[in-house]
Amino acid sequence: MIPRPELLTTLSGSYELTAGATVSGDLIDAVRLALPFLDLRPGDSGEIDVRLDPELGAEAYRLTAGSRGVEIVAGGRAGAFYAAQSLHQLLPDASYRFSERTSWPVPGVRIEDAPRFAWRGLHLDVARHFSPKREVLRLIDLMAVHKLNRLHLHLVDDQGWRVESRAYPRLHEVASYRARTAINYYREPEAYDGLPHGGYYTLDDLAEIGAYARARCVTVVPEIDVPGHASAILAAYPEFGATGERHEVLDRWGISPAILSPLPPTVEFLVTIFDELIGALGETPYVHIGGDEVVLDHWAASAEIVAYRDSLGLATANDLQAWFLRRLADALAERGARTVVWDEAFVSGGLRQDTVVMPWRGMGVGRRAAAAGHDVVATPVFPLYFDYAESASADEPMAIGDAIGVEDVAAFRPAPGEWTEEERARVMGVQAQLWTEWVQDLRTVDYRMWPRACALAEVAWSGAGGEDFAGRLEEHLGRLDAIGVEYRPPAGPRPWQRRRPHRASKVRVVDVMARIDGMTHDAESTRPSM
Amino acid sequence: MIPRPELLTTLSGSYELTAGATVSGDLIDAVRLALPFLDLRPGDSGEIDVRLDPELGAEAYRLTAGSRGVEIVAGGRAGAFYAAQSLHQLLPDASYRFSERTSWPVPGVRIEDAPRFAWRGLHLDVARHFSPKREVLRLIDLMAVHKLNRLHLHLVDDQGWRVESRAYPRLHEVASYRARTAINYYREPEAYDGLPHGGYYTLDDLAEIGAYARARCVTVVPEIDVPGHASAILAAYPEFGATGERHEVLDRWGISPAILSPLPPTVEFLVTIFDELIGALGETPYVHIGGDEVVLDHWAASAEIVAYRDSLGLATANDLQAWFLRRLADALAERGARTVVWDEAFVSGGLRQDTVVMPWRGMGVGRRAAAAGHDVVATPVFPLYFDYAESASADEPMAIGDAIGVEDVAAFRPAPGEWTEEERARVMGVQAQLWTEWVQDLRTVDYRMWPRACALAEVAWSGAGGEDFAGRLEEHLGRLDAIGVEYRPPAGPRPWQRRRPHRASKVRVVDVMARIDGMTHDAESTRPSM
Repeated sequence: MIPRPELLTTLSGSYELTAGATVSGDLIDAVRLALPFLDLRPGDSGEIDVRLDPELGAEAYRLTAGSRGVEIVAGGRAGAFYAAQSLHQLLPDASYRFSERTSWPVPGVRIEDAPRFAWRGLHLDVARHFSPKREVLRLIDLMAVHKLNRLHLHLVDDQGWRVESRAYPRLHEVASYRARTAINYYREPEAYDGLPHGGYYTLDDLAEIGAYARARCVTVVPEIDVPGHASAILAAYPEFGATGERHEVLDRWGISPAILSPLPPTVEFLVTIFDELIGALGETPYVHIGGDEVVLDHWAASAEIVAYRDSLGLATANDLQAWFLRRLADALAERGARTVVWDEAFVSGGLRQDTVVMPWRGMGVGRRAAAAGHDVVATPVFPLYFDYAESASADEPMAIGDAIGVEDVAAFRPAPGEWTEEERARVMGVQAQLWTEWVQDLRTVDYRMWPRACALAEVAWSGAGGEDFAGRLEEHLGRLDAIGVEYRPPAGPRPWQRRRPHRASKVRVVDVMARIDGMTHDAESTRPSM
Repeated sequence: MIPRPELLTTLSGSYELTAGATVSGDLIDAVRLALPFLDLRPGDSGEIDVRLDPELGAEAYRLTAGSRGVEIVAGGRAGAFYAAQSLHQLLPDASYRFSERTSWPVPGVRIEDAPRFAWRGLHLDVARHFSPKREVLRLIDLMAVHKLNRLHLHLVDDQGWRVESRAYPRLHEVASYRARTAINYYREPEAYDGLPHGGYYTLDDLAEIGAYARARCVTVVPEIDVPGHASAILAAYPEFGATGERHEVLDRWGISPAILSPLPPTVEFLVTIFDELIGALGETPYVHIGGDEVVLDHWAASAEIVAYRDSLGLATANDLQAWFLRRLADALAERGARTVVWDEAFVSGGLRQDTVVMPWRGMGVGRRAAAAGHDVVATPVFPLYFDYAESASADEPMAIGDAIGVEDVAAFRPAPGEWTEEERARVMGVQAQLWTEWVQDLRTVDYRMWPRACALAEVAWSGAGGEDFAGRLEEHLGRLDAIGVEYRPPAGPRPWQRRRPHRASKVRVVDVMARIDGMTHDAESTRPSM
């Protein structure tokens, strides 16, 4: 079971759950979403009895199944939902399929369960390669099965913009596609596929994604990555750039010098976008504004921007960047959303105290952010960048580097023992990142995400992958087969999942980190311990 | 509305359908599947009253919505399902999305409706490019919305075998993938993508697909295409081939000479496969055995096969092919399944009288099959091969030919007026084919299929696309947007849907037909009137 519920007792006897079971209590919709095949009916005294206990945390629950029925005691709607997911895990794998079967046996159990971390996240880069709405909804379904609760959507990058904007329609009309895509590795001669690529979510799509996620206890965290990674935005609206020059939606990878202007019109533009995003998604407690891999050369070269910086009394381009991100964070706070940033923005300084930091460059910088009183979501490249290959085998499909295995993810500790208690208390949770430069088709999303995200779920829920993780994962793969997840098999890729062409010298993790350290303004010791 | 219900009256007043509506009658599950957002509850006197009227055809229904509620009178479960689909069409487009909304207004209407044709089919070639299970289930959902009821899965071809076999595991272990795929057009220099491709459905997947389809009034028609198109089978089990030589799973298109042997071991092998298929799918009233594009050279060259033919007293290889297909059809009949074939098998002669013929080479051969007393499902290349481009524009993505527009599909008449009444009575229905040589990714399946399949649904249900079809289609596209279908827009492809590279001289429809007539044993006047 992934994550593993804390099993207190195995009761003798078992219970037969039938399609027309009645459920008492207010949380029938949460139970119904986790057990969609059961055709549950509301009743006064249910075969599934669901009630709230305000003493429990909102995500915590107690589940008892015995010969007389099932009892769920939950701290909130989420707790009831997770109790029903655990109940589902007790049924045979076939219960994860559509079936004409109308009854399932439930073994007798007593479970008391609560998550270790509040933020249990998956990130999906839909900018480099787009995932249509249906795939996002399916990912939410898979997250719900694994009790994951934050979906971080990377909605814009140099290579594309992925949301309708009624205020700035050229974003979805122009910035939403590129004519071709690079297929050469870093340091190889340039090569392109010649295939146009694109797509975007309408605001109606986003509203649906938000509601669908909420119903399944998942919070969508949209990311508008600024001020760098701006080529796509500047293909649509060059006037918001530092140089005013039109860019092309980028068709190759790497860090681009394209950067937004920090001047007031750009801030207004972005705040308008935030309003559209939040208006569509509905309740949006977190908005990610990026702040990573910024090349400030164009700011330093612009007389207008330098003059603006001077008028603010700021000494450096770096200070100006901190000021710019702070203005955006203040605007988001007025709209009820906490800001999330990548760790470079913490290093730049000047963050609001309530800003959440994602230390992708390693837990060292994460610890410093925690020590400075920021909430932190652990997101280090190793072992949480799922665009890295699962192994160093030549059979693995193209990836930016290797090797991050499922066992590496299971061994990860988001709040390391050597941190102080205060620092550890700042760790909100943990999140895996799936960047999609080398994830060119929808089937490969499955391959890269699973089962590493099963290990992530285990760590996020239990704080650690248990010793028996490997054995329980093997059992869990039967559920993924039933759901139809094209995961990476433990023995390596299936024949049609094997290495793609156009690969030569892969970039090793250390190369990437060296490159990042060299490119960003902060070259200090943020290298992760790998 | 697609297909358009026969609207008799618009009642004054309207009704509010609420999430917790009660439904009386036996068919609550059919109504629930069509209106999944309604959270329907069974009640004694329903706000939706559903009852059977044995006077009506099984798929026919009457639907009345007024200020007092909704009444559905149906001839059978399918009729109730289609009534609920029509009720769904009366609601706003947003009702096709997941929503937190709990109430929808229903305009007052009285509808009496029944389909013109019993077979309203879509074909999907999952052999040339595989569609994972989740995409097949989604296609069934889309079919249900359009009141389509036959899903023809082309499960094997030279380029791949797509079903688990416990009796012959090398089929899914070996025949399920190829190392690369041709990307050059016919008559162009050979070019390959270098990408491995593959996948298959487990028997559990097939059972799920069958049950999921049945619940939505869709019958799955599996196709095991024999004796030609056999490269993939003969890569796994060369001993069932005419030459005994091992073939490779084919990585290019066109008609291959690879052919199964007609000897008893091959018949036994295929019957074992049929048993596995039918055992998994459950109730399987039709099995397609292909019979198209067969090159009999290897039979004529084999002393063993010629001797076998002589022992049967048959004069020609063509007679032997007819005998071989007849043996398979007899075995299927013993298993309760009617055989379906492509039209070449009819021309070869010797079919069982209950064999259904699909005249892909045009309605001329279809009429001859009908005149000979065979049930016929209209499947002519023009206008029902959806692998043809929607227009002759240079913007269209790669396709085998052009141009079959949505208006061409809407104008099609499956039972032409010039046929005799007896011949017309033999037309069971109509089906569109999506071959996937040039449909390399899952998003392109949407593009090629929709909205041409909307026009197909209209023709299949109503017998003809109405004069107001174009206007109603425009309205219907709002529903497809809500569902998340990446259809071809009426004005042409979106930027990221535009032409792929590696195209030069496209094969025109007439070239293809000429090529086929030349390759097959029957070069007589089967050319469709285009």
